[in-house]
Amino acid sequence: MLNQTHAPELTSWVTSANTTDTDFPIQNLPFAAFRRSGTNEAFRGGVAIGDQILDLAAAAKSGVYTDLAQQALEACSGEDLNPFMDMGKQAWSSLRLALSETLREGATAQTALQSCLVAQADAEYKLPCQIRDYTDFYTSVHHATAVGKLFRPDNPLLPNYKWVPIGYHGRASSIDVSGQNFRRPCGQTKAPDATEPSFGPCKRLDYEVEMGIYVGNGNELGEPISIENAEDHVFGMCLFNDWSARDIQAWEYQPLGPFLAKNFASTVSPWIVTTEALAPFRAAFERDAADPQPMEYLTSDANSANGQFDISLDCLIKTEGSAEENHLSTSNFKYSYWTVAQMVTHHTINGCNLQSGDLLGSGTQSGPEHEEAGSLLELTRGGKEAITLANGETRTFVQDGDTIIMRGFCQRDGARRIGFGEVASTVLPAKS
Amino acid sequence: MLNQTHAPELTSWVTSANTTDTDFPIQNLPFAAFRRSGTNEAFRGGVAIGDQILDLAAAAKSGVYTDLAQQALEACSGEDLNPFMDMGKQAWSSLRLALSETLREGATAQTALQSCLVAQADAEYKLPCQIRDYTDFYTSVHHATAVGKLFRPDNPLLPNYKWVPIGYHGRASSIDVSGQNFRRPCGQTKAPDATEPSFGPCKRLDYEVEMGIYVGNGNELGEPISIENAEDHVFGMCLFNDWSARDIQAWEYQPLGPFLAKNFASTVSPWIVTTEALAPFRAAFERDAADPQPMEYLTSDANSANGQFDISLDCLIKTEGSAEENHLSTSNFKYSYWTVAQMVTHHTINGCNLQSGDLLGSGTQSGPEHEEAGSLLELTRGGKEAITLANGETRTFVQDGDTIIMRGFCQRDGARRIGFGEVASTVLPAKS
Repeated sequence: MLNQTHAPELTSWVTSANTTDTDFPIQNLPFAAFRRSGTNEAFRGGVAIGDQILDLAAAAKSGVYTDLAQQALEACSGEDLNPFMDMGKQAWSSLRLALSETLREGATAQTALQSCLVAQADAEYKLPCQIRDYTDFYTSVHHATAVGKLFRPDNPLLPNYKWVPIGYHGRASSIDVSGQNFRRPCGQTKAPDATEPSFGPCKRLDYEVEMGIYVGNGNELGEPISIENAEDHVFGMCLFNDWSARDIQAWEYQPLGPFLAKNFASTVSPWIVTTEALAPFRAAFERDAADPQPMEYLTSDANSANGQFDISLDCLIKTEGSAEENHLSTSNFKYSYWTVAQMVTHHTINGCNLQSGDLLGSGTQSGPEHEEAGSLLELTRGGKEAITLANGETRTFVQDGDTIIMRGFCQRDGARRIGFGEVASTVLPAKS
Repeated sequence: MLNQTHAPELTSWVTSANTTDTDFPIQNLPFAAFRRSGTNEAFRGGVAIGDQILDLAAAAKSGVYTDLAQQALEACSGEDLNPFMDMGKQAWSSLRLALSETLREGATAQTALQSCLVAQADAEYKLPCQIRDYTDFYTSVHHATAVGKLFRPDNPLLPNYKWVPIGYHGRASSIDVSGQNFRRPCGQTKAPDATEPSFGPCKRLDYEVEMGIYVGNGNELGEPISIENAEDHVFGMCLFNDWSARDIQAWEYQPLGPFLAKNFASTVSPWIVTTEALAPFRAAFERDAADPQPMEYLTSDANSANGQFDISLDCLIKTEGSAEENHLSTSNFKYSYWTVAQMVTHHTINGCNLQSGDLLGSGTQSGPEHEEAGSLLELTRGGKEAITLANGETRTFVQDGDTIIMRGFCQRDGARRIGFGEVASTVLPAKS
């Protein structure tokens, strides 16, 4: 549902928000937890505007805001955004409108708010909220098919895929914000021709290009969230790199799924782009005529036509000692076989309770073409075909010192382009 | 390591702790979070002694304790025990010793502590701590073999089982304390002969008899916990019923593991029996000569001989409208193929960080004999052979109104018997 906060002609008195290439025009207004770099300041909520951050704790004390927007700002003043996220859609929307009105060109609040700005160049971030439970879905049919082909050439896609939004539980504790540098994991692996497993550093370390979906307000145990109401529980989205150790995964994952192959590190972008900001970027998804229709609990008139989001996803690699960013792939979240609403409803249909700050991973977002794959596993066809980077180096999997960078944005005629910023994370050598 | 707190001849001035059949003699001293039933009192930490609870918030104000024990009591005064659990082994041990000395027959503290007692009959419980991440292991080789036979008669145990302590991530939000009554989950299932799945209430609802293992103090990301230090990070154990929807599981679990089949409800007993209280009940585990030895990172001299715990586990069912408890099975945690220390070390060997309040499930603890199975799936051979209860009713899976009760205790010559109390939980009809 579009409203005046989406109007493409809106500009801000923060003039850096008015450039054509900014991720953070006044139509975006994403949330993060930040402080000034290198200080012991408390982290607090912030909203990106151009190359600045509006300090929400300072804004709460500015006297500019009233009523629900003021209450929302107070809930954003602590180090975690969970209290604000838990307030629900009306509060999110009220604060967005109030921020849009007061950051707009000509707003009388400019004088009072000028001192609430912190330059993004001077800021550092932490996780925007306490992540409670983390669930990873598997919504790209292209990824599922490509990976399935590597393991089961004759039967790449399992019979449940087009009926069940496949998901599994992940590890919340090892999720950190962009800038996470982590050691290459060690673990058990077994070479196909070996009789016994061996132990050592992962040899097939990979990234996964995903969207992260933050639950705002949850549901009570035993009370599923209907498909009609599902998106009302979604606060917003971020970029998400779900690091994966493919050789550890291959040996450990039967019969109960990935475990140590996934829980050593996962990295989110600092900014949460709200569901409301994404409203202009809906995309239709057409199922193949031969595909089953989603079951009734996953079907809604509102959702079926306009359930996806058109979010372009770029993945790049920077190798050690080089400043150059080398393109790996471009994909799009619109290819997701299941919508955000379907993920939420499916997750709760058995009565499972979601909570404020839960993170849902979309699963690797690979597009229909080989070069749109969201992991090296796919791009190198299981490590069999090395890819050559723009700087001349080759890769089958991620090497020590490599930094993987993901960026995302939404763009369409009649709307102002908005972006997600970036998530970047570097692999350090294994612990000796 | 045994010390004076384990001496079997110790008795308490709380005389109900001195009966032979109590779960809570002075040698036990387990922890919970409690308040007086039906009040709005704040929950706080408590220690069971006979049929009483020592209110730890009151004890902290009694003036009886000093130094580290007093600091530990203060950390037990809030509604969650995480701050105390995070203090580590020295604090746990100091408080245990101080409680043992002051609750002992003849202790001068009796007068001051008498008013800190609350009868267990007057108390209600909540989860003893905030459960951060929940991981479920699969450590009973008997369970893995029996369940494997149902799915793969020719190859019941997968090749990784005797090398890898198989585990997967579970859902923390839907874990609640004994007394949890939950609706039968709904979901997608597919009958073997059906061409398409259907939606409705679970028809194969099952319990799983498990031990729950609470992490006390955790580790930093990237810093594995060595096998020698692993048990120092374990605060204690509880009884754990990992409810499972077998028909939902069968349809959804490939390729990424159980999801909605497991995350609708899981139930812990209120009391955490500390690792220190369990010290007299070590049990050796002999691997078959043909089995591989654990890898070096999972091996320790201290651990290999004495790694298991001898905990007898009873499972019972109470059907709707009947007060009679019908025995389902008796098993023992000593059959676990992997030790608690091995679970902890394996979990962190890739750098994964554990945190105070993490819960590790042991997996269903089935014994070597068919009647020692810890689930109906096994007892009824996949639902094919109904069992007859003592009250004459039959069951293949759990019916609406059924209450599943688990109890556990440790007993051996030369030691005082200690118990875990119980975990009981009732299935309500599915939401219509």
